[in-house]
Amino acid sequence: MNSMPLRPSGRQFDQLRPVKMEINVNKYAEGSCLIQLGNTHVLCTASIDTQVPSFLRNTGKGWVTAEYGMLPRSTATRTEREATRGKVSGRTQEIQRLIGRSLRAVTNLNSLGERQIFIDCDVLQADGGTRTAAITGGYIALHQAVMRLVKTGMIKQFPLLDHIAAVSCGIYQGKPVLDLEYIEDSNAEVDANFVLTGRGEIVEIQSTAEKNSFTQPQLLQMLELAQKATRYLVEQQKQILAGLVTS
Amino acid sequence: MNSMPLRPSGRQFDQLRPVKMEINVNKYAEGSCLIQLGNTHVLCTASIDTQVPSFLRNTGKGWVTAEYGMLPRSTATRTEREATRGKVSGRTQEIQRLIGRSLRAVTNLNSLGERQIFIDCDVLQADGGTRTAAITGGYIALHQAVMRLVKTGMIKQFPLLDHIAAVSCGIYQGKPVLDLEYIEDSNAEVDANFVLTGRGEIVEIQSTAEKNSFTQPQLLQMLELAQKATRYLVEQQKQILAGLVTS
Amino acid sequence: MNSMPLRPSGRQFDQLRPVKMEINVNKYAEGSCLIQLGNTHVLCTASIDTQVPSFLRNTGKGWVTAEYGMLPRSTATRTEREATRGKVSGRTQEIQRLIGRSLRAVTNLNSLGERQIFIDCDVLQADGGTRTAAITGGYIALHQAVMRLVKTGMIKQFPLLDHIAAVSCGIYQGKPVLDLEYIEDSNAEVDANFVLTGRGEIVEIQSTAEKNSFTQPQLLQMLELAQKATRYLVEQQKQILAGLVTS
Amino acid sequence: MNSMPLRPSGRQFDQLRPVKMEINVNKYAEGSCLIQLGNTHVLCTASIDTQVPSFLRNTGKGWVTAEYGMLPRSTATRTEREATRGKVSGRTQEIQRLIGRSLRAVTNLNSLGERQIFIDCDVLQADGGTRTAAITGGYIALHQAVMRLVKTGMIKQFPLLDHIAAVSCGIYQGKPVLDLEYIEDSNAEVDANFVLTGRGEIVEIQSTAEKNSFTQPQLLQMLELAQKATRYLVEQQKQILAGLVTS
Amino acid sequence: MNSMPLRPSGRQFDQLRPVKMEINVNKYAEGSCLIQLGNTHVLCTASIDTQVPSFLRNTGKGWVTAEYGMLPRSTATRTEREATRGKVSGRTQEIQRLIGRSLRAVTNLNSLGERQIFIDCDVLQADGGTRTAAITGGYIALHQAVMRLVKTGMIKQFPLLDHIAAVSCGIYQGKPVLDLEYIEDSNAEVDANFVLTGRGEIVEIQSTAEKNSFTQPQLLQMLELAQKATRYLVEQQKQILAGLVTS
Amino acid sequence: MNSMPLRPSGRQFDQLRPVKMEINVNKYAEGSCLIQLGNTHVLCTASIDTQVPSFLRNTGKGWVTAEYGMLPRSTATRTEREATRGKVSGRTQEIQRLIGRSLRAVTNLNSLGERQIFIDCDVLQADGGTRTAAITGGYIALHQAVMRLVKTGMIKQFPLLDHIAAVSCGIYQGKPVLDLEYIEDSNAEVDANFVLTGRGEIVEIQSTAEKNSFTQPQLLQMLELAQKATRYLVEQQKQILAGLVTS
Repeated sequence: MNSMPLRPSGRQFDQLRPVKMEINVNKYAEGSCLIQLGNTHVLCTASIDTQVPSFLRNTGKGWVTAEYGMLPRSTATRTEREATRGKVSGRTQEIQRLIGRSLRAVTNLNSLGERQIFIDCDVLQADGGTRTAAITGGYIALHQAVMRLVKTGMIKQFPLLDHIAAVSCGIYQGKPVLDLEYIEDSNAEVDANFVLTGRGEIVEIQSTAEKNSFTQPQLLQMLELAQKATRYLVEQQKQILAGLVTS
Repeated sequence: MNSMPLRPSGRQFDQLRPVKMEINVNKYAEGSCLIQLGNTHVLCTASIDTQVPSFLRNTGKGWVTAEYGMLPRSTATRTEREATRGKVSGRTQEIQRLIGRSLRAVTNLNSLGERQIFIDCDVLQADGGTRTAAITGGYIALHQAVMRLVKTGMIKQFPLLDHIAAVSCGIYQGKPVLDLEYIEDSNAEVDANFVLTGRGEIVEIQSTAEKNSFTQPQLLQMLELAQKATRYLVEQQKQILAGLVTS
Repeated sequence: MNSMPLRPSGRQFDQLRPVKMEINVNKYAEGSCLIQLGNTHVLCTASIDTQVPSFLRNTGKGWVTAEYGMLPRSTATRTEREATRGKVSGRTQEIQRLIGRSLRAVTNLNSLGERQIFIDCDVLQADGGTRTAAITGGYIALHQAVMRLVKTGMIKQFPLLDHIAAVSCGIYQGKPVLDLEYIEDSNAEVDANFVLTGRGEIVEIQSTAEKNSFTQPQLLQMLELAQKATRYLVEQQKQILAGLVTS
Repeated sequence: MNSMPLRPSGRQFDQLRPVKMEINVNKYAEGSCLIQLGNTHVLCTASIDTQVPSFLRNTGKGWVTAEYGMLPRSTATRTEREATRGKVSGRTQEIQRLIGRSLRAVTNLNSLGERQIFIDCDVLQADGGTRTAAITGGYIALHQAVMRLVKTGMIKQFPLLDHIAAVSCGIYQGKPVLDLEYIEDSNAEVDANFVLTGRGEIVEIQSTAEKNSFTQPQLLQMLELAQKATRYLVEQQKQILAGLVTS
Repeated sequence: MNSMPLRPSGRQFDQLRPVKMEINVNKYAEGSCLIQLGNTHVLCTASIDTQVPSFLRNTGKGWVTAEYGMLPRSTATRTEREATRGKVSGRTQEIQRLIGRSLRAVTNLNSLGERQIFIDCDVLQADGGTRTAAITGGYIALHQAVMRLVKTGMIKQFPLLDHIAAVSCGIYQGKPVLDLEYIEDSNAEVDANFVLTGRGEIVEIQSTAEKNSFTQPQLLQMLELAQKATRYLVEQQKQILAGLVTS
Repeated sequence: MNSMPLRPSGRQFDQLRPVKMEINVNKYAEGSCLIQLGNTHVLCTASIDTQVPSFLRNTGKGWVTAEYGMLPRSTATRTEREATRGKVSGRTQEIQRLIGRSLRAVTNLNSLGERQIFIDCDVLQADGGTRTAAITGGYIALHQAVMRLVKTGMIKQFPLLDHIAAVSCGIYQGKPVLDLEYIEDSNAEVDANFVLTGRGEIVEIQSTAEKNSFTQPQLLQMLELAQKATRYLVEQQKQILAGLVTS
């Protein structure tokens, strides 16, 4: 791999940006985490609600859902507020559906009881990879919230089946690379998001080649990069939740 | 593969539903195709517009975009109209973004000139796999529309770089299967959509495991099923466009 | 009437376009009819819902309502989707209110019991007269749906009091003519829609002269044309419902 | 007609409610009229705008359009504001389209020049017949506005081709009656609105039988009632515009 | 105060415009008042509703709320309808919140019982000071509505604790002046609204200096002008409610 | 003042919560400040836009505007996102209009040139006083942005005429107190916001007594508290902008 093209970020093809996860950053939320992945900063909070969506009423089953937003100046040039525009964009909806599905994939909704946990992921600053950072940080907030339910006796069984973490990969000048910054993402031929469990199994792959197509070997190389990176992220999640690091 | 579980549809794990593509089904559109994949029926039309989105004005470049809709009774129970609800759902937006990206991936937007082609995909009847059928049928409508531009001298170079077709796969009782009907889709552990070019390269993978996770070997098996099926679909596209079949 | 002006369509002043009604065109709906009136094609489905509008709750009475939509490329140039615009236009609302009122006029809502029937009328291709075609075809779908309720014992008394059918008329170069195509409609001085029962009585007249005014004799001549045409359409409805024609 | 059923209002079958039209009721508008038809009170204003709708730009042609609204407590029980609900109802849209078409039918849009006149019709109190009162009163406001254009030399030719006035009729206990109050309208079998010119020609008929159907002779009787009533209303318009009555 | 600048209106610095309040101007409402303050005309109605907002259900407590609207041609140039724009502007919301708060400040919501009173304030003609006129006139409508509740035995205790009235003040060429007309308001450096009780205590002050700032002595001078003017308005309210003036 | 009632916060009647302003907290914005007033945390950014609102085009004049938002879990219980609800609430609009007016009051819009500065104020955590904190912190962001315009030669004259800062006051158990926390605000009889310049002059007063009324002496006591507190806040602004404190 000596001949790898120089990435705009100067990072190695398999090098993650510095990650920092800070917990208890919100006085009110049942769980909270400010995740920083380089210049991408996402504030994740978990809120427990006693109401479930109507399709779950009287089933004894719970739900985990996510909402995602960007502050207007989280981006290089100011982005108009979705509240002002009066609607949530297609991109935002795609992202919040992805985060919700990913977190539900590791949650036993039956043990949760008839309650709903909202994971709000608000991007304070964006530099690529906000949706994957939101999943990784959102897991922390979710974990804190369910721990609180366990500790207060609201639920009996710890409902999380595994850790979950996510990263983006891409193909830059024909080579798979890990964790694209905004400038790299804009120039990549392929953009792929991988959501993986603590055991390394796949929960979601979204891989898009708007400018080009890609091959099966390239897919596998990206998957490998993602597996290595999420192993590291899961390790970080465990330490922060265990109180071993105070971020 | 003798021990394969019986699919609810009774089909083999690698068996596609009967496909039928009928062209010129609309008197006005620059291209049109009614694609039937078993009980899934999608009407695709191509409309050429002389206006491009604002970010392309004065660039000499064109655009391909897609819109997707379901008739209220395309579904087993009636679905409320999005026009009545006053907004396009997140699911619809995800699908129309996917169709648009997929078709643009095989279109040379520079040769298109400063014009936009709308691909409208309206589901008359739904039984699983509407979004992938829309891509496969939408390609036919797009092809007809650009041929018209070429024949009338509006553009000089045929702008389509390759064929494109899509199928869904899933994991049912632990085994990868091809082309899920609605009843199968509801019970599958994993739901995956593959968009592939005529050369078999990948343009988009969306693979979701809401109930479970899956492994790399399972991903590869699904990809293989998809490659075989899209080879067949591309062959059908070529015949219908060559006038070899009249549907 | 030898001196009649030549209609753009080449038809006689009292000549209807070829009519074709195909039933059972939708696998799920309780009733369905694809009505083709020349190049005007409208897909009508009937859906039975167990919920009535709030003003009828606990009255034992049912309701028939209609919704109307046009596919974007049902028109000569593409029309923006109402779902995308985020609201139903005034024209669409006028039309769906007209269809609903017309069908209710021949329905005994008391015999229907506390249930609602939605008649969805979606225009696949438009060439004038879509609203009247929707009423004529919508009646077929409604008839099938109520027959199903009768056959399954859900209701005891057949609730339809009469047939209903509709046509448009107009005044073209000063003379009343029947069933205007789009090109004729655009040039007519007066545009009139007549909804009549099987017995020839009037349920609704909407007659508009934006470019001119008209006289009582002209109104009567148009009404006569409409009565003759709807007698024919009602005859067709009877045959298709009796299975005498398979369309 | 001795055997006529007693109308709830106690009026004769062909008796109009007392009409009063007051002009110059608004300090700013280019034309204004408060029309009172019994307990139905509609405030009509005309506003001249230098912008025409986009389809008329650079055609030299003008436009007349109407908007209609009801104050929340114009009705017996309070009606929610359309502004609060965030959308204009189908009924309102139907009415404002009707008023606009009716006024345009007697306006030479070419002589108007490239300007638009808004006729705003706001119902202060409603007791049946608000849409027809709005047309009759709206004509007054329009007349004043175009007179102002003529007097100030903005346009050369007086653009109104004829007067226009409207009334409602209905069939009550099988008999045609004129000018229904709310209580009568609720119990009528047929509800019909007639818009007629000063010469007695028809511009618009909207006749609806939700509870029943009606016959050709009944239609003609209603038309006759309407012709007599609008002759009277046109006479009133002439007097108020000539300054012969000060209302 | 000889050196006071001449106000555009020609009024003295402490001179109110002629006030006229007419009651019983609406046939249906439980209370109604047309208040005219010079060329500012606001129609206020009170409607009693048996439903309270959800946060008050089963509390035995009532609510008073207000809505505000402007007819399109209440202004010098036509203002687009909020219903047409599909949303209530920020200005309108501010005003209706202010009117509601002000009226609630003098209402014992407990004595009202579990019912809601809507005060609708619709501006027929605007010339500055519409929000303060709406409070003064809205009080009259509210008073009539609660009197009706008392007289019919629906409530036992008269729930209004005091009168309430409002005026605007401003600073014009450095001097505090009372009751600004539109032309004065546009040129004033400071715009202030005072809502005061019958006893002269303050319920609300909204004082804004977009072009300049102001001092504590100026604030006190404006408050004094407002106190004198609202004393007069409260006196007028008492007379009109006592039937001493018939307006 | 020995007999002052104990405030729920334990603070003295004239005691401000600890204030902390941190600048340069956003990588992209032209100015940014995270202001913390006890548990109220507001992130303020300034964004320079080359487009002015349409009413200012070609006037050479600039504009300062503000937007305000709350993260869903900035509050004790989760608040629904305004983007999800599809509209900006009346409260939010009131607040953002207040912030904008306040900042414009100290800005020479002519020296700004034809550009617009957006001040986005996003509440990360709310504990009372978010709107006043947003004004105080928004001034810092605005100051940084205009300094950048001056330093880069985009504008010649420093356009800020004075500092501006804001605090809330209230009347608690009959006594004026400074800077209410949420728990105090809920129990206060009067809620007042004061926006004052560096010189101590008044730019805006919004004082509301929903539960009670208040007197002129009480108004003056609150104004005095506000003047003292804003003097302190302006001093802090000067130090942070001078780089004397690094927060």
